[in-house]
Amino acid sequence: MHELREKAKKKGLFNLFLPKHFEESPGLTNLEYGVCAEIMGRVYWAQQTMNCHAPDTGNIELLAKYCNPSQKKKFLLPLLEGTACSAYSMTEPDVASSDATQIGCRITREGNEYVINGRKIFGNSILNADLKFIILMGCSDPTNEDEWNRHSMVIVPADAPGITQVRNMSIMGYDHAPGGHGEYIYKNVRIPVENMNLGEGRAFEIAQGRLGPGRIHHCMRLIGQCERAYELALIRCVDTRKTPREKSIGSFDSNIERIAQMRLEIDQARHVVFNAADTMDIHGNKAGRYAIAQSKILIPIMATKVIDECMQMYGGQGLTQHTPLPEMWTYARFVRIADGPDSAHRHQVGRDELKTAEIYKERDKEYRRKYIKLANEKGVEVETFHGVTPEV
Amino acid sequence: MHELREKAKKKGLFNLFLPKHFEESPGLTNLEYGVCAEIMGRVYWAQQTMNCHAPDTGNIELLAKYCNPSQKKKFLLPLLEGTACSAYSMTEPDVASSDATQIGCRITREGNEYVINGRKIFGNSILNADLKFIILMGCSDPTNEDEWNRHSMVIVPADAPGITQVRNMSIMGYDHAPGGHGEYIYKNVRIPVENMNLGEGRAFEIAQGRLGPGRIHHCMRLIGQCERAYELALIRCVDTRKTPREKSIGSFDSNIERIAQMRLEIDQARHVVFNAADTMDIHGNKAGRYAIAQSKILIPIMATKVIDECMQMYGGQGLTQHTPLPEMWTYARFVRIADGPDSAHRHQVGRDELKTAEIYKERDKEYRRKYIKLANEKGVEVETFHGVTPEV
Amino acid sequence: MHELREKAKKKGLFNLFLPKHFEESPGLTNLEYGVCAEIMGRVYWAQQTMNCHAPDTGNIELLAKYCNPSQKKKFLLPLLEGTACSAYSMTEPDVASSDATQIGCRITREGNEYVINGRKIFGNSILNADLKFIILMGCSDPTNEDEWNRHSMVIVPADAPGITQVRNMSIMGYDHAPGGHGEYIYKNVRIPVENMNLGEGRAFEIAQGRLGPGRIHHCMRLIGQCERAYELALIRCVDTRKTPREKSIGSFDSNIERIAQMRLEIDQARHVVFNAADTMDIHGNKAGRYAIAQSKILIPIMATKVIDECMQMYGGQGLTQHTPLPEMWTYARFVRIADGPDSAHRHQVGRDELKTAEIYKERDKEYRRKYIKLANEKGVEVETFHGVTPEV
Amino acid sequence: MHELREKAKKKGLFNLFLPKHFEESPGLTNLEYGVCAEIMGRVYWAQQTMNCHAPDTGNIELLAKYCNPSQKKKFLLPLLEGTACSAYSMTEPDVASSDATQIGCRITREGNEYVINGRKIFGNSILNADLKFIILMGCSDPTNEDEWNRHSMVIVPADAPGITQVRNMSIMGYDHAPGGHGEYIYKNVRIPVENMNLGEGRAFEIAQGRLGPGRIHHCMRLIGQCERAYELALIRCVDTRKTPREKSIGSFDSNIERIAQMRLEIDQARHVVFNAADTMDIHGNKAGRYAIAQSKILIPIMATKVIDECMQMYGGQGLTQHTPLPEMWTYARFVRIADGPDSAHRHQVGRDELKTAEIYKERDKEYRRKYIKLANEKGVEVETFHGVTPEV
Repeated sequence: MHELREKAKKKGLFNLFLPKHFEESPGLTNLEYGVCAEIMGRVYWAQQTMNCHAPDTGNIELLAKYCNPSQKKKFLLPLLEGTACSAYSMTEPDVASSDATQIGCRITREGNEYVINGRKIFGNSILNADLKFIILMGCSDPTNEDEWNRHSMVIVPADAPGITQVRNMSIMGYDHAPGGHGEYIYKNVRIPVENMNLGEGRAFEIAQGRLGPGRIHHCMRLIGQCERAYELALIRCVDTRKTPREKSIGSFDSNIERIAQMRLEIDQARHVVFNAADTMDIHGNKAGRYAIAQSKILIPIMATKVIDECMQMYGGQGLTQHTPLPEMWTYARFVRIADGPDSAHRHQVGRDELKTAEIYKERDKEYRRKYIKLANEKGVEVETFHGVTPEV
Repeated sequence: MHELREKAKKKGLFNLFLPKHFEESPGLTNLEYGVCAEIMGRVYWAQQTMNCHAPDTGNIELLAKYCNPSQKKKFLLPLLEGTACSAYSMTEPDVASSDATQIGCRITREGNEYVINGRKIFGNSILNADLKFIILMGCSDPTNEDEWNRHSMVIVPADAPGITQVRNMSIMGYDHAPGGHGEYIYKNVRIPVENMNLGEGRAFEIAQGRLGPGRIHHCMRLIGQCERAYELALIRCVDTRKTPREKSIGSFDSNIERIAQMRLEIDQARHVVFNAADTMDIHGNKAGRYAIAQSKILIPIMATKVIDECMQMYGGQGLTQHTPLPEMWTYARFVRIADGPDSAHRHQVGRDELKTAEIYKERDKEYRRKYIKLANEKGVEVETFHGVTPEV
Repeated sequence: MHELREKAKKKGLFNLFLPKHFEESPGLTNLEYGVCAEIMGRVYWAQQTMNCHAPDTGNIELLAKYCNPSQKKKFLLPLLEGTACSAYSMTEPDVASSDATQIGCRITREGNEYVINGRKIFGNSILNADLKFIILMGCSDPTNEDEWNRHSMVIVPADAPGITQVRNMSIMGYDHAPGGHGEYIYKNVRIPVENMNLGEGRAFEIAQGRLGPGRIHHCMRLIGQCERAYELALIRCVDTRKTPREKSIGSFDSNIERIAQMRLEIDQARHVVFNAADTMDIHGNKAGRYAIAQSKILIPIMATKVIDECMQMYGGQGLTQHTPLPEMWTYARFVRIADGPDSAHRHQVGRDELKTAEIYKERDKEYRRKYIKLANEKGVEVETFHGVTPEV
Repeated sequence: MHELREKAKKKGLFNLFLPKHFEESPGLTNLEYGVCAEIMGRVYWAQQTMNCHAPDTGNIELLAKYCNPSQKKKFLLPLLEGTACSAYSMTEPDVASSDATQIGCRITREGNEYVINGRKIFGNSILNADLKFIILMGCSDPTNEDEWNRHSMVIVPADAPGITQVRNMSIMGYDHAPGGHGEYIYKNVRIPVENMNLGEGRAFEIAQGRLGPGRIHHCMRLIGQCERAYELALIRCVDTRKTPREKSIGSFDSNIERIAQMRLEIDQARHVVFNAADTMDIHGNKAGRYAIAQSKILIPIMATKVIDECMQMYGGQGLTQHTPLPEMWTYARFVRIADGPDSAHRHQVGRDELKTAEIYKERDKEYRRKYIKLANEKGVEVETFHGVTPEV
């Protein structure tokens, strides 16, 4: 890995994900990176060789956007150079992630330091030797009237005394993500005031800004992963060694239909992801909100379904380490819940949509009025009108 | 209708579907027409006002491509002008449409005439007064060695003696399509030899050429129809008149999720259809084969599902003529089988895909060889290799 | 039909649906009738030949349960004898059926008569010559404090002056149900006070009682209908006339899997319906509440899915009147919404279930306490406890 | 575990799975055991405490049925007493399990010994100290004309020299089953001739016999596992600690519908499993063939779906070891492929069903003839006949 990373860095293949409008960017648009991310997604560890792995991607974007020059030098640069790893710590075991205003971890100023006390879940393991710092969201001003100004984001060195891992967290039995996930206790962890990001009470401003392209990198990679899973299914379909009487399983037309259906759904999903990337490139992150949600809802579900089908084609061996399919499935399943479960995204989309309903309602009423007028003029039965019974 | 058609014709909104490379075309690309077709699709009869309705669309394309000048003048021109309607007659009650080489209707030359005998199903009703002619596919040379050269396509005037309708065919209880569908007997129907299309035995050459843009016009319209059904669902969601205690059904978050899911799936499907149109514009009809199949498989299933959900939101009234939803559903269900059931298209896609499997298989073997070599050099356990157990 | 009905009556095959505890019953249990109803369900009109068709079934049960002797003689007897047809009229175009307390049709006493004014939807058409009376639910005491005592149920002779049909209602394009459905206006319709059912303000008491076995008769019939649709699919699968090169579509293993899946799902569904019938037989209608809801939710969805698959196997002809499948599908779709959409039933089941959650929660807390005690004694890490993080 | 097993044994709760017709059985029918197995299924390791865990269950049944007295004493008794564990070894890495006649592992007689050479996959790990022997299926007579007489089943002591484990196999990342699964090489493994089961060449006779109740024990346990998963979902639904503003996720009606749907599907599935058990009790294992296949197809799919939904309700923690849900899902997914993938079972059911199609076809032809005769007598249009166009 180290070797490959050096190679990639020399060839300028580092940090490809960082959109071109950042000065630190190697110059790709989100759409262009989408193509690269798909290719990287084929193999689980490929993204890391090019320094394009979560959560460093999101953290780099955050730091590039909101840090002052001295913070950039101290924290951003090592990440960009690939000499450090970082974590992002927001979720708490006793707070629903879908309402971040309830985050309870306390950040209290004492002299030139902030003191942190709380319990966090997920975020890369501190047991990982490469981990240098954690970007942590906590509550610095619990009584502020505006609940969106109560929280701050700070940078916590990984070796700060007072951080203990309660337990390592597995994902579907796998120690997921480089270094694993864990549950941590922060007890009187002290950091210098310079490690405050942007300013006290501005955590939500930053969180908002973090919700850009990083939110669909997982989806981009999943497309590539599905492509690789699909290839393995194709290979299994033409394999005649393990099947009854030299007949390949691809000679069953039920499998031919399954192959076709996978092909169609992967390609359909790619349109969705690329459209989201393109929308952000052209209209900005904020305008991409709907397209991002669309990706986050549709892609992981498609991916778990497709990869599950591929596993099934391999028979009993499909569930073992004989193929990378079980790990792929686990990643896809994880993405279905990372950054919020799909139902939360559907709620957001649905509520936005309902806001437009009144326009359609008014337009339909207008139609109806015209129609009834016309019908009366011509003596036609108005009751047969389509839509809603005229209200006259 | 007549009035609207005149208006549309004057404004140059006639025959928009005919791609720009035809000299008779008003000048739109397939992609541009896709946008128009979606809008027309919102209302069932709108396509007809602009002379963009099936099967005249397909027939116009066919005639523009394969007719000689005198045929063009006699048959194509009236269609383009909107003074005639046509039918396309291929399916037979006793022959599976998925194997057109079995078509049995006989076309026999007798002097300066062809005599037609057979039984056909579907194709617009001859009871429709505007119907002027039928493009019919039949067998003219049953003993030809090449089974792809046995059939011909001829133009049969609708009023030719010997055509009788056995019964009118309903689609899900509806008399579908302008003029309805039917089952017909052709008994010694005589047509002049000038009505032969392209030449004897060249039916499959023509049929192949007919399988262009016309194959996704239905899908384009379905997107528009789904949009209209979706609007009706939105309107129902904010309607407080008919719901318990003034609570709109849109206040239930289960419906909010349903609304979101519909929105996402319609938009996802649009990418698929537009991509197919675009592929044909840029790379030609033949290159669009996969993208067309993708549309024909995915769009009608999406549409029946979405419209069914909309019906359900209207309660008991959703199934009645109170809304246009039942007709919309029926149209979407019809498209799922028109031009071949979706399973037939999946078979085609799946078989094409399997042809590529050997490439992946070889590439994977190559990987494996390299891997095993490397593993042996480094003394790593080869059995843990992902993909297939090394075959050494 | 008349002939067949006479025959059935003579053989004692009339009113089989009426459970044995009624004195008018021919003596079958609900489970026994379930078997009969399945057989009748195979053909759409069979139920009528044995006087087992909705809504007369529900009305007979209602009248047998809640009428006084003179009402029984006047209204129940002719129904049992099959010399009259009846309708049930509750739904209103401007009121959500899921909240019947909002029903607005007014029933006002004037001397020895009740005067009825309102607008009703559904209920068999008054244009049906055999229709003798309508059981109508309306509001007789709009200001009663208890909203469950505001409504009454009355029997309205079909020929009472003041009833007009606004329009006939089609279901998915079909004129569904014997005599069709319609939308009606009641304008100063007068009926004698003797036609009050049970007593003023007791409509909900009656409606509750009506919600017995009648609620799953549709589901019982659907099982039979699915069996018939399935047989047609089997026949199509072995038909070699219409398929490519004499190969039956049943030789494709994708269709073999479809056939198997249908078989499995129909049989699974039958367990659900029979269990509901059995529960009512043994524990009474009230205890059957959950099992009835289970049938009403699962069976119509299964049936539409299975019949849709059968249609698809018949290709283009599957959607026409060539087979009875489109009508069967429409019936199954109708049942999915009759007596309330499936989502309403799911809400009821789900809310009932959540009431039990506290028990499980308490039990789990108890487990946890024990576990933590034990873990502390043995020095085991408590954090690994499954379920919820210990709260100590 | 050891303690609990002793306790269970003393209370007579050992080997409950063995049907009552065996003399070694504690006396339960399959249906009665179904109820017990559901309860045991709630907790992953519970079955083992009562000696009801796979593959010992299947092996005990096999040995009780096909062993001679001395084999019974030596191998069956320790299993029944719970002093030994066993494995079942049939699958090979290069042979499709769906065609067992291709099994290649060689069993050759040399004097008073059989020599075994081959490669096997799955079967409990020999690294498990309690493992005493393996029941192994191999090819003893490769040139026998009848391919069903080529194979034998032998009992191989776990400590026989020549058995090496190539690698341990994980299932979805988990070391599944007590002692884990593995891939093994048998190299000149020697066993005494007394260890031959039933007789040379009779492996398929035994395998057939093994395919009894043991095939649905997994399904029975899955019902219990789903019940436990469902309880955890209910508990999550009423938990107010972790949700936005003290609102439990059970207050969202989308979750209420999900809860209801799970409840309905678990209960529906239970009917299927219990029916299979009951059929075997009453009509014997062979008659249960269809019902067993029905369970094996429907239950694991239902279970993966339900447990997946439960995981989703727990948010990010649902995928971690915080709940037992990921392990439960993995077990359900494993059962979907154990003893053959569901598609193989569907093929079997579908082919059996098609054999009945001719009966229906003939009956329909008969109907048609009668109908046409009747129609001709009455002068009715025969073309409107439902089913298939009359062929006259």
